[in-house]
Amino acid sequence: MNKIILVVHGGAGTITKQSMTPEKEKAYTEGLTVALEAGYKILKNRGSSLDAVSAAVVTLEDNPLFNAGKGSVFTSEGKNEMDASIMDGKTRKAGAVASVNTIKNPIKAARLVMDKSPHVLMTGKGAIRFAQENGLEIVDSSYFHTDFRYDQWQKSIKHDKIQLDHSGDKDPKGWLKTETEKKFGTVGAVALDANGNLAAATSTGGMTNKKWGRIGDSPIIGAGTYANNNTCAVSCTGHGEYFIRDVVAYDISALMEYKKLSLKDAAEEVVMKKLVTDGGEGGIIAVDKDGNYTMTFNSEGMYRGVITADGKVWVGIYK
Amino acid sequence: MNKIILVVHGGAGTITKQSMTPEKEKAYTEGLTVALEAGYKILKNRGSSLDAVSAAVVTLEDNPLFNAGKGSVFTSEGKNEMDASIMDGKTRKAGAVASVNTIKNPIKAARLVMDKSPHVLMTGKGAIRFAQENGLEIVDSSYFHTDFRYDQWQKSIKHDKIQLDHSGDKDPKGWLKTETEKKFGTVGAVALDANGNLAAATSTGGMTNKKWGRIGDSPIIGAGTYANNNTCAVSCTGHGEYFIRDVVAYDISALMEYKKLSLKDAAEEVVMKKLVTDGGEGGIIAVDKDGNYTMTFNSEGMYRGVITADGKVWVGIYK
Repeated sequence: MNKIILVVHGGAGTITKQSMTPEKEKAYTEGLTVALEAGYKILKNRGSSLDAVSAAVVTLEDNPLFNAGKGSVFTSEGKNEMDASIMDGKTRKAGAVASVNTIKNPIKAARLVMDKSPHVLMTGKGAIRFAQENGLEIVDSSYFHTDFRYDQWQKSIKHDKIQLDHSGDKDPKGWLKTETEKKFGTVGAVALDANGNLAAATSTGGMTNKKWGRIGDSPIIGAGTYANNNTCAVSCTGHGEYFIRDVVAYDISALMEYKKLSLKDAAEEVVMKKLVTDGGEGGIIAVDKDGNYTMTFNSEGMYRGVITADGKVWVGIYK
Repeated sequence: MNKIILVVHGGAGTITKQSMTPEKEKAYTEGLTVALEAGYKILKNRGSSLDAVSAAVVTLEDNPLFNAGKGSVFTSEGKNEMDASIMDGKTRKAGAVASVNTIKNPIKAARLVMDKSPHVLMTGKGAIRFAQENGLEIVDSSYFHTDFRYDQWQKSIKHDKIQLDHSGDKDPKGWLKTETEKKFGTVGAVALDANGNLAAATSTGGMTNKKWGRIGDSPIIGAGTYANNNTCAVSCTGHGEYFIRDVVAYDISALMEYKKLSLKDAAEEVVMKKLVTDGGEGGIIAVDKDGNYTMTFNSEGMYRGVITADGKVWVGIYK
């Protein structure tokens, strides 16, 4: 039996000890642990990495603490518009949805696109119709309303700036500060299953007060999500525009395949060198075909956790 | 002065001599030549490769023969929904729009996203609003109607199949045939300017009778379009889902950067090996930083052309 492993993230950014309360810390830690255990249960029973990453991400989408599914941030029009993607390392098949607003679990829709359509990426109303036709749970858009995100949006409007997730919750000036202090909200999971198959999944509500139908890296295969049994599975979180331009998820795979770098070195090269040079803040989680994993980020913090074959859970928030 | 060069494509697929008339051949050749000359005029005057690829693509968008801008195929709802992207090899900044329907020249909108917003990808109504706010020409959706595409769509509905572009125009059974005989419609341009800067641009109307808000590789940086002054500029055309999964445009760059392959060898590896193995039909045009170029396709034909520093035009359609 292969060395099963599952890694999850709940977003990266300016997450500092000072900006936290013990209660919030506990809630985030619990949320990440629930995600890890949901995926692990599947892997332990020789289930697929695809099912494991889906199950882990579903719990994070359902948890209002994280900027994905319930708990997604608000657009400039006061709506919640979500993106998600998934990729199967065995077949390199992939599915993604972008700008969807009434699909309870966007990651399930991404999975459906992969499994039940000839397409990779569907957007907006068309994607919702496809999800509905295939029996996915559709909810009223009010399901995604959370007071916390609504207030965050109101503050954002007031200060007329596009704000990346998680900001301003504890630090009252968090949402006033400069670009470098923004926080990023996305959730994701990567896993290796007992059959040696890799998978990656990512889901997000995007940027607070986003306008113009902006889409980040989360639904973009190669940028926010990538999986290939020959190399690794990667899920990203960060300033999406940089992750798209740097083709971050695939670049880690390419460095392993073409330059024979280890997973850690490849992640280091992309996240700590290329992205830092370009000014792209954020991080990635990744596992390789041998069960090695990395959680690499150039921001002050990243909600993250890993569960190893023995069922041991480790969760971290700060550097 | 650097060796200026511009390469364009107008789509790839089952384009055979038998399925052509001399009149159509002439029209396609003229359309490609007009595009080449529009871009060359800029390059010759020491203009930027960004301006050159934009200008070339605008002429192809305005030409109803090609599946981009006017001449775009119809969706399952009888609409025209277009995607486009552009990337600057010097800064690696990029812009893209997806699922837009009233922007006369989607490539201009992609350029605006790059130049005038902090984003890379905008979709749907939001993208249109952004274009309009920035003074881009908005047209009635009827502008995109062409009888040829409408008839193609009607045939497609009748036979209840999603059809990729260009099919069935001459061969009355073209739209009845198998997957392998589909044709792909996209336009694109890549260029190297006198200052040694590379740029790539791609624009498309997508698949005939496309449903569910499907988006292909054309607006996806790394998949359909990529440019990097250290390596190359690439624009793709083909079965988009495979181009996304194989991160085609960036992969060519990565093979050059990490494995030190020549542009030709890198393109050969991705288009003639990887894509062929995966079943992904189509092709690419690319130029590298030294002015080498390639037009590599695994389909029966690709509308393509190149204009070299001396102003010489070469245009090809078949293998």
